[in-house]
Amino acid sequence: MTAPHPRLSVNQATIRRADLAGALRSVADSGVQAIGLWREPVQGVGLDRAVRLVRDSGLRVSTLCRAGFFTMPDGASRRDALDDNRRAIDEAAALAAAGAPGSRAVLVLVAGGLADGSRDLVAARGRVRDAIEELAPSAESAGVTLAIEPLHPMFASDRCVVSTIGQALDLCAGIPPHVVGVAVDTYHIWWDPTVLAMIERAGREGRIATYQVCDWNTPLASDVLLSRHYPGQGVIDIPSLTRAVDDAGYTGDIEVEIFNEEIWSAQPDLVVAETIRTFAAAMPSDETGKESPRL
Amino acid sequence: MTAPHPRLSVNQATIRRADLAGALRSVADSGVQAIGLWREPVQGVGLDRAVRLVRDSGLRVSTLCRAGFFTMPDGASRRDALDDNRRAIDEAAALAAAGAPGSRAVLVLVAGGLADGSRDLVAARGRVRDAIEELAPSAESAGVTLAIEPLHPMFASDRCVVSTIGQALDLCAGIPPHVVGVAVDTYHIWWDPTVLAMIERAGREGRIATYQVCDWNTPLASDVLLSRHYPGQGVIDIPSLTRAVDDAGYTGDIEVEIFNEEIWSAQPDLVVAETIRTFAAAMPSDETGKESPRL
Repeated sequence: MTAPHPRLSVNQATIRRADLAGALRSVADSGVQAIGLWREPVQGVGLDRAVRLVRDSGLRVSTLCRAGFFTMPDGASRRDALDDNRRAIDEAAALAAAGAPGSRAVLVLVAGGLADGSRDLVAARGRVRDAIEELAPSAESAGVTLAIEPLHPMFASDRCVVSTIGQALDLCAGIPPHVVGVAVDTYHIWWDPTVLAMIERAGREGRIATYQVCDWNTPLASDVLLSRHYPGQGVIDIPSLTRAVDDAGYTGDIEVEIFNEEIWSAQPDLVVAETIRTFAAAMPSDETGKESPRL
Repeated sequence: MTAPHPRLSVNQATIRRADLAGALRSVADSGVQAIGLWREPVQGVGLDRAVRLVRDSGLRVSTLCRAGFFTMPDGASRRDALDDNRRAIDEAAALAAAGAPGSRAVLVLVAGGLADGSRDLVAARGRVRDAIEELAPSAESAGVTLAIEPLHPMFASDRCVVSTIGQALDLCAGIPPHVVGVAVDTYHIWWDPTVLAMIERAGREGRIATYQVCDWNTPLASDVLLSRHYPGQGVIDIPSLTRAVDDAGYTGDIEVEIFNEEIWSAQPDLVVAETIRTFAAAMPSDETGKESPRL
């Protein structure tokens, strides 16, 4: 059996039916060195216990997923959303420190869709920028990098009004790159005719905060949210994207994040093993099997 | 009952269960002045008969849908595809002339997806450019404008590797705008953060060959191809896009093209009536009810 790639991180969503302790155990037992966590299972056990579990696991925490959802106009629900984002910043900081003291925490942000009854994408996008500006000081003082995640344009109305890396970079402008960056996820950006130039730009601006891989295939699942596949089991040229991200200077963990009902139904240890095996298909050929971490 | 807007064209796909004669009759009887035709029903009766039916209907033919599908590598199937595109050019010319002598024909091109087993989007896109260059002389001599249609990125792998107006415009570069332009369809481009700038660019470059409207809503239908709605019955700010297209100098027909199983099941005359009624929601408020054609 191949040793897991040292940069591979298993995102907890890939084995979402495991509880936090089970997910940490499955990943750590496999020899994988890092995990991307989700807030709901962390909150399920409470942050203090989650921090202890992470510390005991020996795993790095590559990201915390996710906060954001702040496209609504001013009012109570927007204030609640921003408060929740501040809590997420603190959670991200605590969990990253538990995984690897001194490491930088990354909090993934999904912007949210159009407010109910609204067709005003421009205004919604403006409110994303406003929210980022408002959260930046909290992130900076907590040592957390906010990672704005562009989602595939098929989610633009109901989930995320940020659709491209270029747009996400524009939203970051003027805020230091250790405070706000971009989450690059192959599933969401592979189709973009400017993707290689935008990855290069993201690197030049120091803003690749995390890199996530999974594959795209058609026909899409009837719930398009769940239509993600193991690397190599679809049509995305993931090695070329990984090389572009490497060339852009990103040396951090690479998460495999898959939402797929069939994978969720499988036993977590088997899913982790399959993730390790298929991860080779995500790496440029000169990277596959490389044993020394580049972290 | 409101008189149909003089720029409204009903795309035949919206009433696809009607045969050609029935579709022409439904549209003409409603007072709508133009129709967008599809090749399959035209070929079903033969081009000569189709030309006579169009002439007798008194309708303008706003577009012929569709050719393209030329992303495969060199070989017999690519040669067949290009031959078929040349036939489509001739069909488009004949039908447009039957509808309005002297009018310019528009042939909508959907590029096609990745070739079987391929992950090379860059190569596929290069072959689209090659095909356009190869077809341009035939289009020019036939008096047909080829309209490259960017499709929503959710179709990038299996249907159309051209995903944005900007990319489509880049593919047109160096070929005269009366020979190659872009099909702007609200459903496919509404999410694009650069959409207004790209519509303005398309107008500046003289390349808006046709404008099609329908709406987007979530949850998407289980077959995402069929998830199109009447204008106003979704979240796209269609009036703003129409105004941008107007401001960019486009004065031609505006097609309503809807793929939707429920609408297809309804009686064509009722669908045309509903199209006329809902079209108001696609127009800027100063356009609604405008009686004089701007053609």
